[in-house]
Amino acid sequence: MDLVQPRSPRELAAVRSWDANDPLRQFRERFDLPPNVVYLDGNSLGALPRATRQRIADVVAHEWGTGLIRSWNDADWIGAPRRVGDKIAGLIGAAAGEVIVADSTSANLFKLVHVALAARPGRREVLSEPGNFCTDLYVIEGALRGMPGRSLRLEPAERLIECISEDTALVVLTHVHYKSAAMHDMRAITARAHEKGALVLWDLSHSVGALQVDLNGCDADFAVGCGYKYLNGGPGAPAFLFVAQRHLAGSVSPLSGWMGHARPFDFVDPYAPAPGIERFLCGTPPVLGVLSLECGVDLLLEAGTAALQAKSEGLCQLFITLVEEMCGGHDLRLLSPTDARQRGSHLAYAHPNGYAVMRALIDRGVIGDFRAPDCLRFGLVPLYTRYEDVWHAVATLRDVLQTQCWSEPRYAVRAAVT
Amino acid sequence: MDLVQPRSPRELAAVRSWDANDPLRQFRERFDLPPNVVYLDGNSLGALPRATRQRIADVVAHEWGTGLIRSWNDADWIGAPRRVGDKIAGLIGAAAGEVIVADSTSANLFKLVHVALAARPGRREVLSEPGNFCTDLYVIEGALRGMPGRSLRLEPAERLIECISEDTALVVLTHVHYKSAAMHDMRAITARAHEKGALVLWDLSHSVGALQVDLNGCDADFAVGCGYKYLNGGPGAPAFLFVAQRHLAGSVSPLSGWMGHARPFDFVDPYAPAPGIERFLCGTPPVLGVLSLECGVDLLLEAGTAALQAKSEGLCQLFITLVEEMCGGHDLRLLSPTDARQRGSHLAYAHPNGYAVMRALIDRGVIGDFRAPDCLRFGLVPLYTRYEDVWHAVATLRDVLQTQCWSEPRYAVRAAVT
Repeated sequence: MDLVQPRSPRELAAVRSWDANDPLRQFRERFDLPPNVVYLDGNSLGALPRATRQRIADVVAHEWGTGLIRSWNDADWIGAPRRVGDKIAGLIGAAAGEVIVADSTSANLFKLVHVALAARPGRREVLSEPGNFCTDLYVIEGALRGMPGRSLRLEPAERLIECISEDTALVVLTHVHYKSAAMHDMRAITARAHEKGALVLWDLSHSVGALQVDLNGCDADFAVGCGYKYLNGGPGAPAFLFVAQRHLAGSVSPLSGWMGHARPFDFVDPYAPAPGIERFLCGTPPVLGVLSLECGVDLLLEAGTAALQAKSEGLCQLFITLVEEMCGGHDLRLLSPTDARQRGSHLAYAHPNGYAVMRALIDRGVIGDFRAPDCLRFGLVPLYTRYEDVWHAVATLRDVLQTQCWSEPRYAVRAAVT
Repeated sequence: MDLVQPRSPRELAAVRSWDANDPLRQFRERFDLPPNVVYLDGNSLGALPRATRQRIADVVAHEWGTGLIRSWNDADWIGAPRRVGDKIAGLIGAAAGEVIVADSTSANLFKLVHVALAARPGRREVLSEPGNFCTDLYVIEGALRGMPGRSLRLEPAERLIECISEDTALVVLTHVHYKSAAMHDMRAITARAHEKGALVLWDLSHSVGALQVDLNGCDADFAVGCGYKYLNGGPGAPAFLFVAQRHLAGSVSPLSGWMGHARPFDFVDPYAPAPGIERFLCGTPPVLGVLSLECGVDLLLEAGTAALQAKSEGLCQLFITLVEEMCGGHDLRLLSPTDARQRGSHLAYAHPNGYAVMRALIDRGVIGDFRAPDCLRFGLVPLYTRYEDVWHAVATLRDVLQTQCWSEPRYAVRAAVT
């Protein structure tokens, strides 16, 4: 389907001049994006880097098909989780040797909740916020099930910092909220937790690859993050975890699989963790996923986090401004912070018919997503979203709202939008 | 490099006639295998099915690149772990709804050790055998770390069954031993464990896809298995787990990530497990890995487990016979059972210079592997190993042993062979 035609060419021309001057403009063509689509869901599944297509074909045909078992050494599959982890370290203010690619965000959360609680044996509480991304809460719940006397306490973001106490073992927060895009103050919360003797585990899933993150600058303890959102690692790409160097020696993963052993190929009976961050590997690394992720991470490193952050702020500001100008009086309410320093790279708007509005947008080629009960979510991805895309998205949103086409019966049924 | 030339054409002709009459002969050409290589390490990393190459290219370019987030529904990525699990059920004597593809073998072991121990609260022991595949032991050790009063007991295979007692909570065994290929009697051990009120968790990594496995026929409780060996799912492919229907309702995974939730896309705070086997999902499924695995599983289902088992026995018997005929007097000692009913689909031989012999074989295009301290391991894969390959492998082994080329300095250094 065609995108909405510009009704205000002067404005669009202005927006196009921003693209012409965008220092990241060359990255757009390094992604395969379908024509006639404005893709604003890269915060849920990142787009396909062109390099990945060729790389995966090569890994399958040559490294697997021809190299076979020899590729564990000859193609250094065995070193990939650490190599890609070291690259991700460069995106999040971590040092080489503090990050490894492994498993899923959920499994990595589980490992680090265990490690952190083992390091704070006398304390009862794990603190988080209600409405945190659900897997973070579910995993904490699962980890605590076998730990009598310990419990999960949920406090709203605005007073969470005051609730950190001498009884807090661990604070677990998503750095940028998956729904509202509200960003926690990593430095202040980490400092407060340390004052009280607590540890902090940051879920970077909605910030890594879009924003500047400075784990070591904030004296962070632990972090996890997702590989398939802004890192563009592909559907279900493996995740990563970070353990500050000072915590590494004392940390033992509860998921003590063979790949985390000091000498996995000695096949000895007793477990001995690897000296480095490799101890957080569990089973055999998912090679296709790790190498696909590497292609995405390489592009981000080439762009640089300062440029990513600046472009993210520009895209979000334009979106907010255009919605104010073009969509006034239509029951849209910005759920995200207006201050870029307190926000991630997506925007959330409430609308009473949110689900149907998003269906109508998707039908017109503007792909965002919906989160119950009423939240429209638009991901603005510095590497491949253009200012022009923002203009088209908001103009389409205006048309959908003005014509109320979302009130047609076909948009009225509520169903799952993943 | 060229394979060894046949010195006894009459014998080779006989062997070739077996291939001509092999009911599975058409499957060989459905794999991409490099020329001039006899690949006998499919028990470590299975070969590349031709269909997989095209399927992965399509998933990357179209489902990911063009479909983007929509493919979770439109391409049914969301249903893939269960769909492929149901297919694997057909290879292991399980019912639909008892198997799911998820995570790694190690992570799945962890989940099921927890589930089984929760179901046997008063019992102290987890029983396994020394020299079991290392990750099985490491994962049990990790799971037990937080359970005071419970411990891992290791007893040699030959008297393990007598050691199952009223104090045994769980027996964890690899059905076919990764090194010796010795097969445990699944029916007898399971029956004995149930008599004593214990549960059994079978690791099928070295049997699934090569042999007939009948979990429900043996009244099995739990199982896990590897996706990248005989299932040909690709390097680091996701694994699977089996929970007998009667245990499902009471089982809660300790790795309670969002994909195992009853309604993951409701994003509600409290955890509620999915009603079915999906409760053992943790994070977002690794789509490339799951769909690659599906291609491998489809080929095995087409072949049928009875034909796989028969061909496996034929290949192993030929290998053993040819070694006896061609390699006598060279310090080779068969470590695997001679009775096919007690053996998997690979063969292990001890040789005092095992590492160097294997290096020399690999240099000559015969790829098996080495396990310390002295074990040569040859995987005979029913779908793509030909009787002719067995002949070439043993003839090459004979040449290596006769010329003692493995005693040359370049083969003398011991190093890791993955």
